[in-house]
Amino acid sequence: MTTITNTTRNGVDTEKLFATLDLIKAQPELAKFRFRATNRWIDGSHNRSTIKDFYAAGGEDTTRSEAFEIDAGEPAILLGTDAGPNPAEYLLHALAACLTTSIVYVAAARKVELTSVESTLTGDMDVRGALGVDEEPRNGFERIRVSFRVTGNASKEKLREVVERAQRRSAVYDIVTNGVPVAVEVATT
Amino acid sequence: MTTITNTTRNGVDTEKLFATLDLIKAQPELAKFRFRATNRWIDGSHNRSTIKDFYAAGGEDTTRSEAFEIDAGEPAILLGTDAGPNPAEYLLHALAACLTTSIVYVAAARKVELTSVESTLTGDMDVRGALGVDEEPRNGFERIRVSFRVTGNASKEKLREVVERAQRRSAVYDIVTNGVPVAVEVATT
Repeated sequence: MTTITNTTRNGVDTEKLFATLDLIKAQPELAKFRFRATNRWIDGSHNRSTIKDFYAAGGEDTTRSEAFEIDAGEPAILLGTDAGPNPAEYLLHALAACLTTSIVYVAAARKVELTSVESTLTGDMDVRGALGVDEEPRNGFERIRVSFRVTGNASKEKLREVVERAQRRSAVYDIVTNGVPVAVEVATT
Repeated sequence: MTTITNTTRNGVDTEKLFATLDLIKAQPELAKFRFRATNRWIDGSHNRSTIKDFYAAGGEDTTRSEAFEIDAGEPAILLGTDAGPNPAEYLLHALAACLTTSIVYVAAARKVELTSVESTLTGDMDVRGALGVDEEPRNGFERIRVSFRVTGNASKEKLREVVERAQRRSAVYDIVTNGVPVAVEVATT
């Protein structure tokens, strides 16, 4: 008799997941990644990022055949033409996406089959800061609220544990809550 | 004789820009904005955000007729199928887009006509943190580097001043460098 085990859970190949974790434990230098984006101004508040290459596991990754192109804009009230979501909205998307993927991967590793993961994010901003009208309000969001609705074949307690663990592991949650040093260079030739 | 003044510079209506600044100076309560994103898990590392409504200037903005839908994914090495840029790459895009728009608006206000604004962003990450393999590396980027190339009808010094001013005003730059409190709620029904 042959036992066939389906190792895919929540769309995540858990055998490959655990193999990746073992490999990185054995060779920590493979964990160094470098992600990149290039951006080009188009007109007014409209600009476009191109995302393709990245460095991972000791070399340049070449598995992406096509680049992703994503457009940012501003709504009319912020002097734009809605060519795309605005940068602050993209930041909320980045946070939602990272927390969601972390939840899905943690659940897969812990044998929890998820049925749905939905979230609503809100970010409050006093735009006097970013518009330079007043020095008192900060430029960015004062606070962000994330509200998850998660269902799956586990107890409420287990599902909450999965979300808490995912929150403690999410890359973008860490960046947004703790901040990251950013170095800006300018060439004007 | 009638003098017709074109108030649009860099694609930004500067008359409207200064009118907006004056209005917000006079009525600071109009500066309270709330941006939103909703996200839904699709499969594995693939999820999708919907972005449309926001609160601005004392009420719900209704100028967007259609929602933006943006997909996030992961490349194969991070167990995905490249359904979209990954969340950390979206964060770089948000930062690039916000700094670029800030540069364009500041230049418009200061009578600088820009010819081009391009940027390259890199973010270094030791994925042992996010994968939970080691407690030592942080989950998010260790550092981000932004390299701008800016041209326009102003001296190099003036163009650099524009970038510096934009950096001091960018909402996403503030969020990413200084961090923001994030509250996460979970419903598991």
